[in-house]
Amino acid sequence: MNTINDTICAPITANGIGAISIIRVSGPRALEIGDKIFIGKKRLSDSPSHRIYYGRLINDIDDVLVFVFRQPNSYTGEDTIEISHHGNFLISKKIIQLLMEYGARLAEPGEFTKRAFLNGKIDLLQAEAVSEIIQSRSDVAVRSARKQLDGFLSNKIKVIRDYLIEVSGLLELELDFVEEDVEFVDKETVVQKIELIIKQIDDLLKTFQTGKYVYEGINVLILGKPNVGKSSLLNRILNDDRAIVSDIPGTTRDIIKEEIFIYGTLFRFFDTAGLRKSTDIIEEEGIRRARMLFEKADIVVHLVEFDNIDENLNDFNLHASNKYIIKVVNKIDTLTNEQVSKKFSKDMIYISALTGYGLENLFETFKNFALEKNVYSEDLAVISNVRHYEALIQAKNSLINAIESLRQNFSNEFVSVDLRKAVNSLKELTGEITSEEILNSIFAKFCIGK
Amino acid sequence: MNTINDTICAPITANGIGAISIIRVSGPRALEIGDKIFIGKKRLSDSPSHRIYYGRLINDIDDVLVFVFRQPNSYTGEDTIEISHHGNFLISKKIIQLLMEYGARLAEPGEFTKRAFLNGKIDLLQAEAVSEIIQSRSDVAVRSARKQLDGFLSNKIKVIRDYLIEVSGLLELELDFVEEDVEFVDKETVVQKIELIIKQIDDLLKTFQTGKYVYEGINVLILGKPNVGKSSLLNRILNDDRAIVSDIPGTTRDIIKEEIFIYGTLFRFFDTAGLRKSTDIIEEEGIRRARMLFEKADIVVHLVEFDNIDENLNDFNLHASNKYIIKVVNKIDTLTNEQVSKKFSKDMIYISALTGYGLENLFETFKNFALEKNVYSEDLAVISNVRHYEALIQAKNSLINAIESLRQNFSNEFVSVDLRKAVNSLKELTGEITSEEILNSIFAKFCIGK
Repeated sequence: MNTINDTICAPITANGIGAISIIRVSGPRALEIGDKIFIGKKRLSDSPSHRIYYGRLINDIDDVLVFVFRQPNSYTGEDTIEISHHGNFLISKKIIQLLMEYGARLAEPGEFTKRAFLNGKIDLLQAEAVSEIIQSRSDVAVRSARKQLDGFLSNKIKVIRDYLIEVSGLLELELDFVEEDVEFVDKETVVQKIELIIKQIDDLLKTFQTGKYVYEGINVLILGKPNVGKSSLLNRILNDDRAIVSDIPGTTRDIIKEEIFIYGTLFRFFDTAGLRKSTDIIEEEGIRRARMLFEKADIVVHLVEFDNIDENLNDFNLHASNKYIIKVVNKIDTLTNEQVSKKFSKDMIYISALTGYGLENLFETFKNFALEKNVYSEDLAVISNVRHYEALIQAKNSLINAIESLRQNFSNEFVSVDLRKAVNSLKELTGEITSEEILNSIFAKFCIGK
Repeated sequence: MNTINDTICAPITANGIGAISIIRVSGPRALEIGDKIFIGKKRLSDSPSHRIYYGRLINDIDDVLVFVFRQPNSYTGEDTIEISHHGNFLISKKIIQLLMEYGARLAEPGEFTKRAFLNGKIDLLQAEAVSEIIQSRSDVAVRSARKQLDGFLSNKIKVIRDYLIEVSGLLELELDFVEEDVEFVDKETVVQKIELIIKQIDDLLKTFQTGKYVYEGINVLILGKPNVGKSSLLNRILNDDRAIVSDIPGTTRDIIKEEIFIYGTLFRFFDTAGLRKSTDIIEEEGIRRARMLFEKADIVVHLVEFDNIDENLNDFNLHASNKYIIKVVNKIDTLTNEQVSKKFSKDMIYISALTGYGLENLFETFKNFALEKNVYSEDLAVISNVRHYEALIQAKNSLINAIESLRQNFSNEFVSVDLRKAVNSLKELTGEITSEEILNSIFAKFCIGK
């Protein structure tokens, strides 16, 4: 059994070629184990917190810097050392082996952050934010996760929770005096207060979609008849972005082919090119796939030629419903200004996938979509995963039940049970109440070394 | 123009997913720039060396730890701060941008190490060792580079150089008294001393091949008639190794398919399977390719079937010369012990690529080759690149010229010129004498952030 009394270790920097890598050792024996494997000018056990020592490891594995953090002033809240060594995975491996020989255990994924949570350094929403920050691939995602780590969402939840406890208190106070049949608080006032709380929860629930845009990106489908230039447009979009992005050497990453970042937001592009084939069976399969992509899309770029400018999405048997549709007229380079002006509409975007004309207008439209969906909002607390969503839905349902009971003049005890349920759902969200099971499922998603 | 008066910055940890990443800032303005972008409890400029501070970056990019190193007690020998932030390349990028806004410049590849060299923290051989350590993929390579960083090779060169300067001194002393026609030192003694030096240089030159085995690995070619089981053996070798290697999660790396590590040494495998085709032209091409692989091979595994045990490499028109040939008899699982014992020879290895029988004997043979070639030698100073090799050859040639001049009774002045040339070649090796051009060509091979 792994316990919090163990001393754990793991590399905390990324794998790959780098000048240095760092291994963290955290737990009650961190300094003691450090002293056994490190030969420096001073015993680590005698060191104050936040000091750095140069020295060698026993077995001459490497010369290293050791960073000393004393509890509670470390990431985990425990005594911690971090060993900065030459970046080579064979050296990392040998150091980990050495630490394990001297009594440390390899940390499980997320275990450093789990300990930070268990030691009260951060709450559960902040712990999740750490994982989000590391995995975020767009500027807006990093910023949003950063705000969550700063407690932006936690504070919002806590305000709601405190208000709810206050309301609950009013009812329970009345409960204490029930035999005297005194009514301390007007029922309708309580209902109004609970409705106000539901409104706040609803506002948070609405951010779930924004959270998906922020963290998972925005799906764009390019749709249109054969030969209208879907693939050309896709290539143009992907290449233009490559030109916009100026990467600092050493910070680039492989990006998936169809994904680009426009104004700091991830957009994922699909086209339906190549789906239409001659035989009927394949044709059907093509239509099925186009429908599937259509369902997944947040934005649909409906690409048409000028001669066919009135084409409608219904022609594809696709129904717009809640999609954000952009009609884009391609091959504008083959037309004269006169031709264009005759049928010009400001609801359409005129481009040439060939020359790149008009692309910036298209990008601007993408950005506007993101803006509308609050993706760029600076002060929005965003819920970012299903756990948050479900906990809030549970809280909301309990509150709806409470209102129902109040309206039906049920005893306050009934109402109080529902209010307490709602409070507990909020406490589960921040981790004030939690089970080992929930914790494990959350931290299992972390990478090792976090 | 980039000068050493600039303050430079770069990420020093690997790209990719990791809990933390680190950016180094080095140069006269490191602490000043740090104070402008970091909000902590204390001004970094007022901090002693080797301290750690927690705080936030301006613009709220991230909360960070800042490590302070004061010159000369840093990697570069300059004032240095290292910023430990949440591992996300977008955050790294923003911090780099911020640092550049406040006057730092992005470091060139190898520039931190170049400064360490220019500031006298390490010599050129040690600087090269840093790059080798990071890029080393086998245990023996890491250990060898580690020794070079510890000055093992540098010290050997310096001993030779000092001895040479001493000999040179004897001759120049005589030169001062040339008009008095005094002979201070017996010419033959000088010749013997120089020959002793040449012997030492020769010993180092011989390690060049070992260095290649250590750093670049050992090439093994599996050769044999069609259907003898070349591909099966190759697969078996590669898979057995996968089973042997136990990797610690978070320290694994992609390895190239044909490369494996046996007892800490890199072996690279090739087979000539699939080269024989029916038409004559392709057959010719196949033979040409087999020859090419044969030339490149350090070890040739000559795979035969038991029935054909006397097959000779000459049958392939390949001539063994200096190759290390291992004859391996495959498909031993199809034979009875009695059959085998009739034609048993201890010069061959009997295996079954199918069952894995005998594989450990084959691995043992590979290891023995590496052992013979000094790959595992603990106390060998190994030269590891062409620069080293050429400098030593130059030194040796100058010494041969010196002996020639001495033998032909040329004036001491002639001899001294050659001896000085030899000393300079050695000084170039360690970087005591160097040109901007040589430095640039060396450090350009480094990765950024080193």
